[in-house]
Amino acid sequence: MTFDSDTNQNRIAAPIGITMGCPASIGPEIVLKYHQSSRAGLHMPIVVIGDIGVLEKCMHGLGLDLVLRSWRPGSKVDHAAVNVFEESGIDTGQFTFGCPTPETSRAMATYVERGVMLSRNNEISALVTCAISKLSLNQAGYEFPGHTELLASRTGAKRVAMMLAGSTLRVVPATIHCPLSRVVSLLNREDLTGLIELVAERLQEDFGIDFPRIGVAGLNPHAGESGLFGHEELEIIAPAVAEAQKRFRQTAEITGPYPPDTVFYKARCGRFDAVVAMYHDQGLIPFKLLHFDDGVNVTLGLPIIRTSVDHGTAYDIAGQGIAGISSLNSAILLAQTMAVHRAGKSC
Amino acid sequence: MTFDSDTNQNRIAAPIGITMGCPASIGPEIVLKYHQSSRAGLHMPIVVIGDIGVLEKCMHGLGLDLVLRSWRPGSKVDHAAVNVFEESGIDTGQFTFGCPTPETSRAMATYVERGVMLSRNNEISALVTCAISKLSLNQAGYEFPGHTELLASRTGAKRVAMMLAGSTLRVVPATIHCPLSRVVSLLNREDLTGLIELVAERLQEDFGIDFPRIGVAGLNPHAGESGLFGHEELEIIAPAVAEAQKRFRQTAEITGPYPPDTVFYKARCGRFDAVVAMYHDQGLIPFKLLHFDDGVNVTLGLPIIRTSVDHGTAYDIAGQGIAGISSLNSAILLAQTMAVHRAGKSC
Repeated sequence: MTFDSDTNQNRIAAPIGITMGCPASIGPEIVLKYHQSSRAGLHMPIVVIGDIGVLEKCMHGLGLDLVLRSWRPGSKVDHAAVNVFEESGIDTGQFTFGCPTPETSRAMATYVERGVMLSRNNEISALVTCAISKLSLNQAGYEFPGHTELLASRTGAKRVAMMLAGSTLRVVPATIHCPLSRVVSLLNREDLTGLIELVAERLQEDFGIDFPRIGVAGLNPHAGESGLFGHEELEIIAPAVAEAQKRFRQTAEITGPYPPDTVFYKARCGRFDAVVAMYHDQGLIPFKLLHFDDGVNVTLGLPIIRTSVDHGTAYDIAGQGIAGISSLNSAILLAQTMAVHRAGKSC
Repeated sequence: MTFDSDTNQNRIAAPIGITMGCPASIGPEIVLKYHQSSRAGLHMPIVVIGDIGVLEKCMHGLGLDLVLRSWRPGSKVDHAAVNVFEESGIDTGQFTFGCPTPETSRAMATYVERGVMLSRNNEISALVTCAISKLSLNQAGYEFPGHTELLASRTGAKRVAMMLAGSTLRVVPATIHCPLSRVVSLLNREDLTGLIELVAERLQEDFGIDFPRIGVAGLNPHAGESGLFGHEELEIIAPAVAEAQKRFRQTAEITGPYPPDTVFYKARCGRFDAVVAMYHDQGLIPFKLLHFDDGVNVTLGLPIIRTSVDHGTAYDIAGQGIAGISSLNSAILLAQTMAVHRAGKSC
């Protein structure tokens, strides 16, 4: 890959930014452990958007041997150190891992705000986020249910979607956090068409898949079996698939609705590059079965690249040295892949 | 294991009966291929309830080298041959694999009827069924949606349930073939309690698990997150779990409701002996992901032991020699395990 324009040179040369997540969570620990690891496959520089004092406390607690350095946008990244874009000065004397406070909650939100700003200014190539607490986010005065909505708001994105990505399976649920009984009323042809199209477009642009193959799951057992077990396949899903097929006739393979109990198996066997699922557990049950430890949460539809760890704050084990870095590792490598592809596409 | 009574001696000494399924399906082919295979792990005799002419035609078509012998209840099983309890005399001149007829449909139903009769008379120890066509069953004058309902009716069973069993996961869905939008209205505490208790009892009696550990899935994302995404966990599932716990306090571990997107992963890791799922795809998505080829369908709650292949008639490939025997192999071995345990328990 060559980079022809100055802009793309800048973008791809810029480091990946990693928000530390809630300071009281496992975020500081996994960020440090990642730096201590072999970082296999990583060829872009990385910087941490967080709190140098908290990282230092965590480092000493875990007995890690790392050098922490302050980094500012545009300055060189020291590959032998943990480069920290300092965005809070938490009083570590009053601070305990596992115990979020109003101070940590505000800091946590600030990292995300700064991450977006750096991304939009091309001072980082991609944003990787560690976990935040939705409760803390609200307590810090943010009226968003989570990361994704905050990011969509700050970037002015109109249609965003959560993709869960792993080495053998990528799923995008059409509905997420709602009771199962409400799923049917939330599905409609127009939104589903838009979602399928977004997935196709992002697989091409960000994942570098020239001719993506998307399998769309049905909603009901056996995909409704011709209306015997439900009509949503006939009335909503099949028309949405047909509509999306029109736009991507030459550039993607969009098929379905498939029986939900086989479409994920087929995807696992390599038949699809992504599966559009109709509801949270339809997508997350197979995804977590295959990628419990190393799954990545990707936000599709943002102008910036954003991947995230696929786990929570894990306050119960924060600072104990037992948190794993598989998901963070995968999130960083996927962010790198996406940054390279997006830079390549815009050359 | 020792067998103290004559009855148990008879039961365990009796062969396993395998219905051939629809004669026009892949049933004859997989039954013959199984006999041709190493039959690893099988130590009980087996007999086929089917049509010797159809098996012969299939055998010649596939170029298999097997001896077909007629078997009647009480007679010796010839281990070097395929022992066939003949229950139809299909005109093979008029017969084509892949093309069911009224004659094959009637024959298919007769095999099941005879299988039940032989089981009830202890002339076979367990019944393994190959696939039938629901359409053909109805055309043969049977007003049942499938095998399970026919078997429940013929044996007078009051509460039956479908378990899908594999080497790493066993799931029992509380609702099966209904639109997703109807699932909520079909769930109730009493039936769910009965189902959980049935699963616990059968794991003990038929699977030889003295202290079974059953995980009960929630219905909604994150198991409702304390009512945020649905109330069925609080109103139906948790009370059913509590009720079942009372009866099995000393003899089983019954827990839940668990977030659906992690309970199957936990089961796969060995945390549970079975998961009670709330709806078809909740259980079948993870099951087929892990056991697409070698899954077994077990009917819990019948007085007889019945396992079944976990695939359909596959008319499109019948007689072509490409059907796999993994599911039949697993179904036969599980039937044997269940027969041994049930005989042992009733000593």
